[in-house]
Amino acid sequence: MQAQIQRVRVALFGASGYSGVEATKLLACHPGVKLDVVTSDRWCAETVGERLGLGGEVARLRYVPNDLGLAAAAGVDAAVLATPAEVSLKLVPALLAAGMRVVDLSGAFRLADLTLYPDAYGFLHDQEKLQSKAIYGIPELFGAALRGARLIASAGCYATAAALALGPVVRAGLVAPGTIVVDALSGTTGAGRSAKEELSFSEVGESAKAYRVLTHQHTPEIEQTLARLKSDASSAVIFTPHLVPMRRGILATSYVPLKPGTTLQEVHSAYTNNYAYAKLVRLRASANDVKTGDVCGTNRCDIGFALDTRTSTLVVVSALDNLRKGAASQAIQNLNLALGFEETTGLVASGPEGGEA
Amino acid sequence: MQAQIQRVRVALFGASGYSGVEATKLLACHPGVKLDVVTSDRWCAETVGERLGLGGEVARLRYVPNDLGLAAAAGVDAAVLATPAEVSLKLVPALLAAGMRVVDLSGAFRLADLTLYPDAYGFLHDQEKLQSKAIYGIPELFGAALRGARLIASAGCYATAAALALGPVVRAGLVAPGTIVVDALSGTTGAGRSAKEELSFSEVGESAKAYRVLTHQHTPEIEQTLARLKSDASSAVIFTPHLVPMRRGILATSYVPLKPGTTLQEVHSAYTNNYAYAKLVRLRASANDVKTGDVCGTNRCDIGFALDTRTSTLVVVSALDNLRKGAASQAIQNLNLALGFEETTGLVASGPEGGEA
Amino acid sequence: MQAQIQRVRVALFGASGYSGVEATKLLACHPGVKLDVVTSDRWCAETVGERLGLGGEVARLRYVPNDLGLAAAAGVDAAVLATPAEVSLKLVPALLAAGMRVVDLSGAFRLADLTLYPDAYGFLHDQEKLQSKAIYGIPELFGAALRGARLIASAGCYATAAALALGPVVRAGLVAPGTIVVDALSGTTGAGRSAKEELSFSEVGESAKAYRVLTHQHTPEIEQTLARLKSDASSAVIFTPHLVPMRRGILATSYVPLKPGTTLQEVHSAYTNNYAYAKLVRLRASANDVKTGDVCGTNRCDIGFALDTRTSTLVVVSALDNLRKGAASQAIQNLNLALGFEETTGLVASGPEGGEA
Amino acid sequence: MQAQIQRVRVALFGASGYSGVEATKLLACHPGVKLDVVTSDRWCAETVGERLGLGGEVARLRYVPNDLGLAAAAGVDAAVLATPAEVSLKLVPALLAAGMRVVDLSGAFRLADLTLYPDAYGFLHDQEKLQSKAIYGIPELFGAALRGARLIASAGCYATAAALALGPVVRAGLVAPGTIVVDALSGTTGAGRSAKEELSFSEVGESAKAYRVLTHQHTPEIEQTLARLKSDASSAVIFTPHLVPMRRGILATSYVPLKPGTTLQEVHSAYTNNYAYAKLVRLRASANDVKTGDVCGTNRCDIGFALDTRTSTLVVVSALDNLRKGAASQAIQNLNLALGFEETTGLVASGPEGGEA
Repeated sequence: MQAQIQRVRVALFGASGYSGVEATKLLACHPGVKLDVVTSDRWCAETVGERLGLGGEVARLRYVPNDLGLAAAAGVDAAVLATPAEVSLKLVPALLAAGMRVVDLSGAFRLADLTLYPDAYGFLHDQEKLQSKAIYGIPELFGAALRGARLIASAGCYATAAALALGPVVRAGLVAPGTIVVDALSGTTGAGRSAKEELSFSEVGESAKAYRVLTHQHTPEIEQTLARLKSDASSAVIFTPHLVPMRRGILATSYVPLKPGTTLQEVHSAYTNNYAYAKLVRLRASANDVKTGDVCGTNRCDIGFALDTRTSTLVVVSALDNLRKGAASQAIQNLNLALGFEETTGLVASGPEGGEA
Repeated sequence: MQAQIQRVRVALFGASGYSGVEATKLLACHPGVKLDVVTSDRWCAETVGERLGLGGEVARLRYVPNDLGLAAAAGVDAAVLATPAEVSLKLVPALLAAGMRVVDLSGAFRLADLTLYPDAYGFLHDQEKLQSKAIYGIPELFGAALRGARLIASAGCYATAAALALGPVVRAGLVAPGTIVVDALSGTTGAGRSAKEELSFSEVGESAKAYRVLTHQHTPEIEQTLARLKSDASSAVIFTPHLVPMRRGILATSYVPLKPGTTLQEVHSAYTNNYAYAKLVRLRASANDVKTGDVCGTNRCDIGFALDTRTSTLVVVSALDNLRKGAASQAIQNLNLALGFEETTGLVASGPEGGEA
Repeated sequence: MQAQIQRVRVALFGASGYSGVEATKLLACHPGVKLDVVTSDRWCAETVGERLGLGGEVARLRYVPNDLGLAAAAGVDAAVLATPAEVSLKLVPALLAAGMRVVDLSGAFRLADLTLYPDAYGFLHDQEKLQSKAIYGIPELFGAALRGARLIASAGCYATAAALALGPVVRAGLVAPGTIVVDALSGTTGAGRSAKEELSFSEVGESAKAYRVLTHQHTPEIEQTLARLKSDASSAVIFTPHLVPMRRGILATSYVPLKPGTTLQEVHSAYTNNYAYAKLVRLRASANDVKTGDVCGTNRCDIGFALDTRTSTLVVVSALDNLRKGAASQAIQNLNLALGFEETTGLVASGPEGGEA
Repeated sequence: MQAQIQRVRVALFGASGYSGVEATKLLACHPGVKLDVVTSDRWCAETVGERLGLGGEVARLRYVPNDLGLAAAAGVDAAVLATPAEVSLKLVPALLAAGMRVVDLSGAFRLADLTLYPDAYGFLHDQEKLQSKAIYGIPELFGAALRGARLIASAGCYATAAALALGPVVRAGLVAPGTIVVDALSGTTGAGRSAKEELSFSEVGESAKAYRVLTHQHTPEIEQTLARLKSDASSAVIFTPHLVPMRRGILATSYVPLKPGTTLQEVHSAYTNNYAYAKLVRLRASANDVKTGDVCGTNRCDIGFALDTRTSTLVVVSALDNLRKGAASQAIQNLNLALGFEETTGLVASGPEGGEA
């Protein structure tokens, strides 16, 4: 494999969070990437082999403290950030200044309307110029803009599940004015590694609840996406996240008012047109066939739908692994586009030695 | 306790299903009831003490086969049916003819439009006269009609969670025409005791899915309830049930279009007016405070809500134990009303010896 | 019910931990008890009704801060302590001095050899005189000594599961010298309410592990119990606790070397002799019939066994709810004995109004 | 990659069971294998891509019915059997006769004492000659014998966890005569895909139990292994399997009587000597560090231990994924040895493009 000698050197910041661990595993197997730096205060000075049990050359790579990450990353070609939004906000300018391409998994550069940041993320955002250059990262919807990008704001887990479900019918102009409901379920890793009583097994086990009702930070992210897909759209989104007793996976059930008379065939065409060549989206024959158990541990989003002709409401069910297609896998898709690789390099089997991790 | 000698004799049909087991436990502790007959083919000839580990006089009660149940129940005052709808359909006429009051937990007598039965329950329903006499059993909404009733069709688990959430604002006339979305999560006991691969731990664990999308039998039940609460209402209901990895509990998140300008205060009044004296409904300060973990093992439904003023959409979250307030507890509430007891007898602490089981 | 006016007044310290919550529920329904004081810093000034959803007179009882508990409890007859061992160690002398009977759920007064405390519980223990007066609380094994006791050290959850499994054959003299292995599984509530990453759903879900291998504080507690049951016994105990992904329940599988030639009939007699009148122990026909799902939410311990005649090893499986028979229920059994009530008052159905909570 | 043209053609029988699915995924990524045939009645005529969502050349491979498998496999070089023992028993002779090398995951050829089969597996076994030629497949213990083997009886999941834990100290002669206890926990996939009420989420969730106490078929398999490792050993094994609420993973805690005076250093040497070059066994610093969550989804067994010097008892904790190192991964290790590949080909990262699946 001659490509080996030209492998791109990559630094991963925030490598010990749940998304960071997945990104480590995927980057370790990426044929075009040499994972050169991993940062983590928690696992500082330990090796990837000790912590994750991975073999190969990455096994001996040592975690460096976060605040030494920038120095350690001198000379790498690209950086993947699995850091909290506040950290990303500060780190990104320096990384770009050092000439790296950057894929940020946090929300730090996702929202064009910076006035939303205090409510959504709890901090003031003053990097207007930088934000305006960031490309929002969902390859299946915005792939063209992502090619060669220098700064990519990889989409949020819930926002990805919603956007992939809603994008095709919005883009096709099938959606009637009104309110779109996105009701979504998440496993606990979506809340990150954390020592909170409310996330303990004793509290989460055998229980389901809604949280951040009407106040979740992914609501404006979803609305922004829909507006970009169809400039004259006038949809408001009501998004309700729920915590259910599982570790991984997001299931989003979306309720979309369609223009009266829209046929199931038109809906079907909207999805197949959009995802005909999408290797990481799988359309299912029925909304009943979509389950998180099928996508967890994969890089893929599954989608199914049903049309209520009485009310012209489309019910779309989408499922993905919040740490994969909702985080690390999508970041690598975005990285591939930024670097000029084929979009799904390292994510889909391309030969006998390959295979979906 | 002098009431003891006048205890009402009750027969429970279908006592080994999950709802039947809960009903057994509750009836065993009910101060006004003597549980006289329990039927089950599965546990035939075993005792309640052996199977459920209960003490007291009920411990020595033996399960009789279902087809001997009618004979065994000769002379009892009331029957509670935790049988499949097809079985209830056949059993109820005989029980009524024998002079008993009947509370049926199945869907056999819930739907006034008998043409819905083939799709909803998979059988033809020809008991039009009997159905027309059945009172639909949600005490908090239809309590007056239930007093002294001879045949009560106890409401379904999902339908109860939805109706308790939607009832107050529908009744108060706050709902705008349009589509109400009810998106609900259920634990596995809602599917009954069953040996199905799709309900195995290996398949359900760490997975979430929607099922019977647009085709669940509780959709017409919910719509019928709303129409009864407000005769001029014109709401369509889209109901999506989901299976999540827990054993018990239903969480319903409902999205209700309100008349433009409706205030949070009006909504609040609708709920407090309706549930001021409801001992088995608890209003929570926030939609985020409602979780199934709080209600499982209790006889209560918790409700919280939030108003999206941008779109005048009310988001209501309701939670109950599908085997208790969604089945056995509600059946006993209904039975209490049918028999002239205080509504929550045996369900709520009424003294030092009492207490919520 | 005339007994009501003579109800014993009880204070519960540490009422917001998982065991404290169970104790609150049980004491609230206890016919001979008036729960007068509940202490909790976490829930300070809230009511039991708000927090636990209980009805009845206890609903209006307010949690008082722990350090006001002693003052608030002035004049009560008995105290139940669901506090950490360090707290119990300090609280107990004052409560006894105030004339109360005390049942302590912690390990503070369980171990006669005070030199074990630093390793087992992490503190020095200097209350030798008080410890020597404490009666170790497992009613099925030491009931006679518990009647009228002033200070009871209620047994630990694992230790109870092991002692109830091993006690009959030890007492009957069937055990051969050597090593007894106790291998036990616990749900997460055994670790108490806590905000630890290692107890988060993300970490515990779909995972099983051993912990405190060879160093758990219940090992000397179990050995002390066996020595008390049979003064000439020379058994060493190796105890391994495991954490498995469930919230409640302990399953202990014990491996006991029996004297060569011991028959299954002798073993059977040992258990039936010991537990013939024990209302809260249920002997199962087979070791395969014991499961935590059967005992969770009950006050009971289930026990089953099998004899390996090749090696004369007895395999005993015991199961209990760590928060009930392993904590709160057993504390109330002990309290009943201390106060002169029938042992299972408030724990087992004694008439139509009763029933296992 | 030139090796591609010489890839070995492999048929997989029983490809839709849980172990079969894992084997499919691993074989699809194996650089030296071309997966040519997959059999399954359940998924007959569907493709691997549709069922498992895999990409690459395997995506278009169609499942053939089991009874056409032999014909479909004509000309392949090797067969992997993930079939029930009864099926393997009949299939193996024909496959060997057709010249294939065979790795069987079932118990059909594991036990040298054929008289054990009726009790252990429920059938009579009359293939004495064939059994005597089968090599028992745990590469870390019997690797030399497995090279070039024509028929390999891949070890059982529990038996592997026990043998890897016990093997080093048995082989080193550190074990004293007496009884070894193996107490093991398993997730539900160990029971296979099945529609049994006792394996439903409602029954398994929040519950733990022992099963087949003293009668599990892996007991003689473990004893046979120990006898082969040390011909003069005289250990009896008591093995207790438990079902706990997780889907995947086995945790075995073994209690081994060591010769008096055995030091921790001697024990440590036994393990490091045995596993110094074992890529799929990881020794952990402490018995407390071994958890199934670390090994599920990997091809590895983790092992940790502690020595009770009071009783000279070694406590060893081992963990593996029952579908990987306990089934499919080990089968591929065995296949690699049979075919002359490096033992962990396809199982461990061997370069930038590799990585543990």
